[in-house]
Amino acid sequence: MNLPELIKSNSERKYFAVYPENPKAYPENLQAEGLAAFQARFNTNYTFIDDNASNFIGEEVSPYLQTGIGIKYAQFDANTIVNNASNSFNIWKKTDLDLRIKVLTNSLDRVKERFFEMAYATMHTTGQSFLMSFQASGPHACDRALEVIASAVEQLNAYPHKVAWTKNFGKFDLTLNKNYKAIPKGVSLAIGCSTFPTWNSIPGIYASLITGNTVIVKPHPKAVYPIAIFIDELKKELKANNLPTTVIQLAIDSSENPLAKILAENDKVKMIDYTGGNLMGDYIEGLHKTTFTEKSGINSVILESVKNIDSVAQNIAFSAALYSGQMCTAPQNIYVPADGIDTEDSKLTFDEVKDKIIDAVKGLIANPKAAAPTLGAIQNDATSKRIESVKANFPQHIQLSDLQVVNAEFENARIKSVNVLVVNASEENIYLKEYFGPLICIVKTENRDQSVAIAKKSAEKNGAITCLAFCINLDRMDFIEEEMNSVYTPVSFNFTGAAFVNQHAAWSDLHVSGGNPSGNASFTNANFINNRYIWIGNRYML
Amino acid sequence: MNLPELIKSNSERKYFAVYPENPKAYPENLQAEGLAAFQARFNTNYTFIDDNASNFIGEEVSPYLQTGIGIKYAQFDANTIVNNASNSFNIWKKTDLDLRIKVLTNSLDRVKERFFEMAYATMHTTGQSFLMSFQASGPHACDRALEVIASAVEQLNAYPHKVAWTKNFGKFDLTLNKNYKAIPKGVSLAIGCSTFPTWNSIPGIYASLITGNTVIVKPHPKAVYPIAIFIDELKKELKANNLPTTVIQLAIDSSENPLAKILAENDKVKMIDYTGGNLMGDYIEGLHKTTFTEKSGINSVILESVKNIDSVAQNIAFSAALYSGQMCTAPQNIYVPADGIDTEDSKLTFDEVKDKIIDAVKGLIANPKAAAPTLGAIQNDATSKRIESVKANFPQHIQLSDLQVVNAEFENARIKSVNVLVVNASEENIYLKEYFGPLICIVKTENRDQSVAIAKKSAEKNGAITCLAFCINLDRMDFIEEEMNSVYTPVSFNFTGAAFVNQHAAWSDLHVSGGNPSGNASFTNANFINNRYIWIGNRYML
Repeated sequence: MNLPELIKSNSERKYFAVYPENPKAYPENLQAEGLAAFQARFNTNYTFIDDNASNFIGEEVSPYLQTGIGIKYAQFDANTIVNNASNSFNIWKKTDLDLRIKVLTNSLDRVKERFFEMAYATMHTTGQSFLMSFQASGPHACDRALEVIASAVEQLNAYPHKVAWTKNFGKFDLTLNKNYKAIPKGVSLAIGCSTFPTWNSIPGIYASLITGNTVIVKPHPKAVYPIAIFIDELKKELKANNLPTTVIQLAIDSSENPLAKILAENDKVKMIDYTGGNLMGDYIEGLHKTTFTEKSGINSVILESVKNIDSVAQNIAFSAALYSGQMCTAPQNIYVPADGIDTEDSKLTFDEVKDKIIDAVKGLIANPKAAAPTLGAIQNDATSKRIESVKANFPQHIQLSDLQVVNAEFENARIKSVNVLVVNASEENIYLKEYFGPLICIVKTENRDQSVAIAKKSAEKNGAITCLAFCINLDRMDFIEEEMNSVYTPVSFNFTGAAFVNQHAAWSDLHVSGGNPSGNASFTNANFINNRYIWIGNRYML
Repeated sequence: MNLPELIKSNSERKYFAVYPENPKAYPENLQAEGLAAFQARFNTNYTFIDDNASNFIGEEVSPYLQTGIGIKYAQFDANTIVNNASNSFNIWKKTDLDLRIKVLTNSLDRVKERFFEMAYATMHTTGQSFLMSFQASGPHACDRALEVIASAVEQLNAYPHKVAWTKNFGKFDLTLNKNYKAIPKGVSLAIGCSTFPTWNSIPGIYASLITGNTVIVKPHPKAVYPIAIFIDELKKELKANNLPTTVIQLAIDSSENPLAKILAENDKVKMIDYTGGNLMGDYIEGLHKTTFTEKSGINSVILESVKNIDSVAQNIAFSAALYSGQMCTAPQNIYVPADGIDTEDSKLTFDEVKDKIIDAVKGLIANPKAAAPTLGAIQNDATSKRIESVKANFPQHIQLSDLQVVNAEFENARIKSVNVLVVNASEENIYLKEYFGPLICIVKTENRDQSVAIAKKSAEKNGAITCLAFCINLDRMDFIEEEMNSVYTPVSFNFTGAAFVNQHAAWSDLHVSGGNPSGNASFTNANFINNRYIWIGNRYML
């Protein structure tokens, strides 16, 4: 279970998800049961085992149905929640690491029993397709949680519990007994986003919990249900072990009366995990607390030489279309030199490359079996409106506008297909902004060096989580990697087939580097664990 | 050389300094040669191998002679220095880790040849005694540097350089090649203090260098010479390996025209190591850069039960007198319950305990062999004046004022012996402030629980690097440890004989926890290394 140990000892690794990502790997009856469980929640209060609230609120809307799902959650004021967290901290911090491991890993196994309910909960809050909802919110989130637990176990054992230390002073020895303790920082706040309510929040939640901190989860008010399943099962497992159920709490709020800043500014809240936009993220980072942020960024595609343009264009089209560009890892700007790109034996003009990409998008969207499941639905109207306003501002640059897509299962689904702008490198005012949603820009650069220079500048200034590059010249690959790595952006080279830049696998891929404006933390490096507690060494002379 | 590995594998550890701390362990001629080398520097320019400056400045004053020593250093403007560091970063970051290890460890061995010159340089800038000057600036600083190098080698090997990753998709396998790279953050600034110019700065300097960053050293203008020796030898070793000598640079400034803020605010400076007062330290932490600070704090002594009050009183007296209380680890406030303390078979009244401590201080200061070498000299007049103004403000609380001490070797030495105030716990306005220098407060508390409560509150609010506790009841020891650890302050229990709370040994003691206002970093935990670079994982499909 220990990532660094595993990959240190193997230069070749087979990847087996601990929780299988294929729904078909689970007993056949579970899907129907999950759907039934999901439907049974409609228009009810979601109560946890320790709820004693008088007020319940909720405002989730299904992007597939475009109606509210009517689920409400117990509402408490911020002070009550923080005081609960502060009180249970005094018990949880003293709980043996072995028991913390047991509670947390058991909670994942409990969640596993609800993977299909989780999938529907995710689908009908985020707009992800069924398959992505299943994988991202269930198995992949649980794998990330296990990775965090394993990494924490390694870090928390960096020093021995006790050691006898002897120093020779010539005529005599001085012996001191010493101990080393990892003292957790206290109450932790996890602020979630509306698109990946579990995958993005679970690593921070489990990292805080395994290191002895208590956690308040403040989800996006439009995407509560998926993370409520985790909270539910954690509370049950805590209770089963006679531990306070307020070690984990849900802080429900509404769009009209948000709680995030009230909680974040509370003196007892020592750490904040945050996923979301820049404005709020910058505010969080400015609080002088321990923070772990994932904010926005612009992901680039650098296109300069290829083996086969068709498979490359298909790869780009799929990455841009997947969940309608609402993934933090989705590519936005595709840099193509004005003088075209090299193939193994010829050259393609800029227009040929551009047309190949647009045709690949059209082909994907025109495929009735592929389009709807790839695009999913748009999580909220603001995203659709933002894309429309960009198109209204730059009508002369649009070379592919929304294509009609029918979702046979959900006729009211909020769907928007991939839009393509084509711009010149000089038009930075158009493309050097993040357009969250289904819009990509094909940028005509003066030459391949300018492509890399702009992608680098953009990552440094606007942030970037990923960079996808197509290049079959080894020296140029080194150059691209070095330039993009120098602004702390990882590069994925020559992805075709089943490899997509959007995917960051647990146990292998570091998600967000923490080194550019897209965020200050990384799933899961040592800092992601170690910043949640303080090492203390005590000394004894007896 | 690897701390975590060593102490993980051994529950019993013998401590051998890599660089012996006893001057007698070195060839006999070295002390005289070191003194001669030191004296030869008087009233000269200290030039490095790469100096091409036209202007030299310096303002160091010997606390033993109370005259300037006349050594001047090449002055450059901030932009020149930062640009040099930025340019050499592009080479140093690409230098193999093995070569970086070689350069850095060789530089320590070069410095070892100058340990005696270093001792005199430290003595006549900081006012430390000869023995402390020798140990702290030479062997102990080099041990801390080696500890940092070893720890970095461990951290930098947390991931393999390359790995082949295979994921099964049912009908086929997808294989990606992945690499993991530690990308350094860039130009690092080390701001030094006037009392421990090498011991406090060397860990951060070597931690930045070993992880591939270049370093600008901005020492206190009154304590340049000791760190100049390190810079000198690093430059020589860099040159010997055909590497740019500006990987390490001295930024000399003056009290009238300080450079620290100008350098710290430069956009190209990405990291700052800082030792010094709170005002500047809080400013540094507020810059939104990566910072490693050691600021001020108030260290407590909790006295509640003892085996032998005489050895305890002697231990406290020595810790308070050592280098005239100018160590960041020196105790200031001694909490004694109004109803006295327990011994194994009887009880001591508050007054008996207080008198024992005062008598122990008097005894130490009255001992002509011990007094001068223990006290050393006061680094600067401001410290003496500060202590005098405290005494002038609270004359009725003074129970021991400066005793006359003669330094036979240096009749002009700036000496100040230990002052003792006795106060009630309610008089927080007197004792809950840091008095840097030779002044301790014996605080009469209502009871032993109040002692712990005040020490805890003080650590949380004012910061604390250490806490010394005397307690022979195991349950109370647990209680004290838990309470002080909860505010991220380590406790040293029942130190007598050769064990002093002031000492933090490399390879075993974490110096500053990073969890309270005394500083945000720790020598040497994983964060002290890992915060200096960013892990990046690239992926290839070929």
